[in-house]
Amino acid sequence: MRIEGELNRRGLSLPGPLRLPGGTPLPPTWVRIRGNRAFLSGHGPQAPDGSVAGPFGQVGAAVSIDEARHSAHLAALSILGTLSRALGDLDRVTAWLTVSGSINAVPGYTETPAVMNACSDLIVELYGDEVGAHARTAIGVAALPLDLPVIVACEVEIDRAGLGAS
Amino acid sequence: MRIEGELNRRGLSLPGPLRLPGGTPLPPTWVRIRGNRAFLSGHGPQAPDGSVAGPFGQVGAAVSIDEARHSAHLAALSILGTLSRALGDLDRVTAWLTVSGSINAVPGYTETPAVMNACSDLIVELYGDEVGAHARTAIGVAALPLDLPVIVACEVEIDRAGLGAS
Amino acid sequence: MRIEGELNRRGLSLPGPLRLPGGTPLPPTWVRIRGNRAFLSGHGPQAPDGSVAGPFGQVGAAVSIDEARHSAHLAALSILGTLSRALGDLDRVTAWLTVSGSINAVPGYTETPAVMNACSDLIVELYGDEVGAHARTAIGVAALPLDLPVIVACEVEIDRAGLGAS
Repeated sequence: MRIEGELNRRGLSLPGPLRLPGGTPLPPTWVRIRGNRAFLSGHGPQAPDGSVAGPFGQVGAAVSIDEARHSAHLAALSILGTLSRALGDLDRVTAWLTVSGSINAVPGYTETPAVMNACSDLIVELYGDEVGAHARTAIGVAALPLDLPVIVACEVEIDRAGLGAS
Repeated sequence: MRIEGELNRRGLSLPGPLRLPGGTPLPPTWVRIRGNRAFLSGHGPQAPDGSVAGPFGQVGAAVSIDEARHSAHLAALSILGTLSRALGDLDRVTAWLTVSGSINAVPGYTETPAVMNACSDLIVELYGDEVGAHARTAIGVAALPLDLPVIVACEVEIDRAGLGAS
Repeated sequence: MRIEGELNRRGLSLPGPLRLPGGTPLPPTWVRIRGNRAFLSGHGPQAPDGSVAGPFGQVGAAVSIDEARHSAHLAALSILGTLSRALGDLDRVTAWLTVSGSINAVPGYTETPAVMNACSDLIVELYGDEVGAHARTAIGVAALPLDLPVIVACEVEIDRAGLGAS
């Protein structure tokens, strides 16, 4: 539980399962595990109680860069929460591979990498350069679920020893 | 041919190869198979005769949510058609891994998950929770090929036994 | 060094490492290698001296289709430059798997596949159909880093023999 220790040391805690109003359309699963690969659906920022965290709207208009960076930081914690529930121990992530960020941005917005670095930096800080390094994309999109400012999907390699089949 | 049976039971049939006007730029291949992995290029809705199926334009403006959901359903069938031609038998798909949806949406459109669920739900209905579950993204984009309302790309795991090399 | 020969034969050279003004936010790494898989961060067009190559702005407005195609061609060379530095020899790429293109496009722009084919075609020309074929996406987005007209990410399979661990 080394990563959980790193989170504690920084005063960070993981949100619980996503709480949304009934009837909100969801992806089939938040994480798809197969062999030693885990694929994460698009995750947005969550509040500590599991609900969706605002602000909402376009980055570069209703949402400032600092707010968007905080949302990207919370999206990283949301992903870690999903992985923690699926794997039991975040040390089971043996390599981050890809982190794909979509930012709900005004046309021509140029700061998407600065926004996504708030997500990438947390991962690399927690896991170190060797395990935490990842290929990253940061695109500005026209629309996101719930009008969230940022959504992050990713693929990680995991150590399955002791986990169930598949 | 269990999946083909599931399709028949629902009165669904797979479209043939995509028919486009000559000179339309295409991706190098519709499916890239390597080992037990198959990667699908972005697929849009097809009509039964193989041509591209409308309506065209932005979801939330020219295209309604119900029309967009039908387009996402047709895009799932288009992907299944490609897989069927490449694999011979859709039961060779042993695990859906990722489904990445791009919706041609008006800025701030919030219903992209509802649109993509028309694609995801069909996959899970046909393949069941175990094989059909997948990580999913649903982003709203500024523009898509042919002004289609939705494009879907994905990665699946396959059973290669009996297929050719690579 | 067969691929390097193909590049020379076409009068093409690879750009050096990306040169950006100090403080520009970057992804954690340009390429993430793990086992026989290599994941590339989003790459834009580079000039021969390693700096970012213009033009900048929206395709379909400030940037013409021909300029955007040249940018996509340069983005392919940028990716090859990254792979060359990481692998030592571009022949180590044993299969292109996915090429994901994001085009900074005016809403409703329909020529994203034509733009991305300037990237895909170069890869297939250099590597041939067998190794070079790849699943491809070409979406139009609202915003890209540095207001670039196109960004390309991808996954390739590599031959690791003789490279370091992991």
